[in-house]
Amino acid sequence: MLNFTYHNPTAIVFGRGTIAKLPELIPAADRVLLIYGGGSIKRNGVYEQVREALQDRTMVEFGGIEPNPRYETCLRAVELCRREQIDFLLAVGGGSVIDGTKFIAAALKYAGDEPWDLVKDQAPIHAAAPFGAVLTLPGTASEMNGTAVISRESNQQKLFFSSPHTFPKFSILDPEVTYSLPPRQSANGTIDTFVHVLEQYLTYPVDAPLQDRFAEGILLTLLEEAPKIQADPHNYDARANLMWCATHGLNGLIACGVPEDWASHMIGHELTALYGVDHGRTLALVMPRIMRHQRARKRGKLLQYAARVWGLRDGDEDARIDEAIQRTESFFHSLGVSTAMSDHGVPPEAARLVAERLAARDMRLGEHADLGPDQVEEILRL
Amino acid sequence: MLNFTYHNPTAIVFGRGTIAKLPELIPAADRVLLIYGGGSIKRNGVYEQVREALQDRTMVEFGGIEPNPRYETCLRAVELCRREQIDFLLAVGGGSVIDGTKFIAAALKYAGDEPWDLVKDQAPIHAAAPFGAVLTLPGTASEMNGTAVISRESNQQKLFFSSPHTFPKFSILDPEVTYSLPPRQSANGTIDTFVHVLEQYLTYPVDAPLQDRFAEGILLTLLEEAPKIQADPHNYDARANLMWCATHGLNGLIACGVPEDWASHMIGHELTALYGVDHGRTLALVMPRIMRHQRARKRGKLLQYAARVWGLRDGDEDARIDEAIQRTESFFHSLGVSTAMSDHGVPPEAARLVAERLAARDMRLGEHADLGPDQVEEILRL
Repeated sequence: MLNFTYHNPTAIVFGRGTIAKLPELIPAADRVLLIYGGGSIKRNGVYEQVREALQDRTMVEFGGIEPNPRYETCLRAVELCRREQIDFLLAVGGGSVIDGTKFIAAALKYAGDEPWDLVKDQAPIHAAAPFGAVLTLPGTASEMNGTAVISRESNQQKLFFSSPHTFPKFSILDPEVTYSLPPRQSANGTIDTFVHVLEQYLTYPVDAPLQDRFAEGILLTLLEEAPKIQADPHNYDARANLMWCATHGLNGLIACGVPEDWASHMIGHELTALYGVDHGRTLALVMPRIMRHQRARKRGKLLQYAARVWGLRDGDEDARIDEAIQRTESFFHSLGVSTAMSDHGVPPEAARLVAERLAARDMRLGEHADLGPDQVEEILRL
Repeated sequence: MLNFTYHNPTAIVFGRGTIAKLPELIPAADRVLLIYGGGSIKRNGVYEQVREALQDRTMVEFGGIEPNPRYETCLRAVELCRREQIDFLLAVGGGSVIDGTKFIAAALKYAGDEPWDLVKDQAPIHAAAPFGAVLTLPGTASEMNGTAVISRESNQQKLFFSSPHTFPKFSILDPEVTYSLPPRQSANGTIDTFVHVLEQYLTYPVDAPLQDRFAEGILLTLLEEAPKIQADPHNYDARANLMWCATHGLNGLIACGVPEDWASHMIGHELTALYGVDHGRTLALVMPRIMRHQRARKRGKLLQYAARVWGLRDGDEDARIDEAIQRTESFFHSLGVSTAMSDHGVPPEAARLVAERLAARDMRLGEHADLGPDQVEEILRL
């Protein structure tokens, strides 16, 4: 096992009816900015629940955080916070809204001239305004980590930052608010979680059996629960289990003491920035290709994955690995997500373009930090 | 899944050489009280490492926290803190030292006359002095929770308290410091962890498959790693894995959204208070008896435990449960711990005595909170 530090101070308030607990979680005198996205919370009743819970509070609203939250939009929220002397930010939405809120919180306390530096140069974040979240779309685990991904329209960049100061103070996870999610978004969230786990699990063995079992536990549970939600979107326990899996997919727990990959995410972010492909869908495209391209170096873990997640323990080892990759793709297909580039509007020249963009930022990907532009191009051409 | 709140703000600093990080973790100007137990840290080099790391700090020492830390001893530490104007407590030891430190931290901020009220009446704790820990004996998970068990000599009581204010600010977990543990203490810690997990897992199903898999992951890892440590006490990875299992056995994670039992612990605490039996050993005595006595009500989970932890999936269901309980006991035996009352100096009359003591405090035990004195007596007579 590798050395590690684990510190996750976010309070999770989980279950039916928990939005009503908001008044206990936000300091009574604070002026609150309610931050949300495209307005789905006004259609599914979440907005009403939040307003009712906080009816005695001073609250200002900022809607319109995009999927892949934009720098330009976040800056407008920062201005509003300053004008309205906001003390506390409340993100109500999915990963995009929470990510945007993290950036707003950090930018509010940033002393420099150009907050994009926080993202572009990973400038250290020394403080952030306090914020909480009401999660409506499980997948990113942004509700229980300090990481955010921000996009900049002007230069087609999608970059991330991470800080101990940008963990939510609390996150409310009520599975019932996910009943009305469109199947496309549910599928994206499930794939995002599945691939988060693989990024931290499918590397090379370091004798960390507990972390492996936790990771496998999440994968097995996703495989079990996702079809239940397809069969009945109002299955409370299936929604709850998926939600709790998603949080653990990227709250730092399964990363403790193990190597991490993240090549699928880095390549996927470029596909989103260039072609607007949903984040979860980019992962369904890239991860199986990484598995095939890196099968020799990931062999030990691929065999363990085949055995423990897919029950493939007998016969030729290479056939088991092939079958495990095949079944991974079939799982994505079962959620209605194609793993063919062309089905997502990604042209063949994307391979070279993505490789060049990563090379321009001097990125070497993967758990060995040695996948350069040529390998990235090979992966995307598979 | 049941509703829950999960909030664990302790920072874990894990791995080789991490005691050297102490100066980054304790505010530079703070006056520190170093709290330890019977002095083993002076024999195994941990004391030297701590002194060296904090050589530039103002530090006072308090040794002599007992296994089953005593109220009377803790009060002397509280006096010392006041006299020396201590700002920060540093527990260096196992669960007893950390538990004692939690009580000292809470008592320092307690406004009432008699700090025993914090334990006896579960008086709400509104604040506690800040403290950190260097863990030397894995098992209790006190390094990552807000719970402590305190004993009072004058009335032979052993009681617990729990508060969000008594989480350590940080805990340093260096597996190398556990190389020199006596086998008896290693075994106690392993059994403590194993039974912690069973207390939160072996109840009744509530459709919480992720929590189940996390729990099973800890149990399977303990079964794998404990023999490696017996074979080679200096096996780093086995020590590291056991240590990380122990933390997760009782840091609140696997309790999220599921019912909990804790009858073995409640009964075990009485056996320690009355007969001085090591905590881990009381659990080895009581848990198998609870499994037998409650087998009808725990049937679903016992079958799952038999299947997933012991690989018992075929044949008669009752035989599988018998075999799973048998193997649990055999595991304890393999660690050198008997499951016979007489081997631990517990006389037959203990059954009635423990039942009466719990009845005097109006305790109803188990996940249904309905095991009264008669059931407790039956359990201990099995």
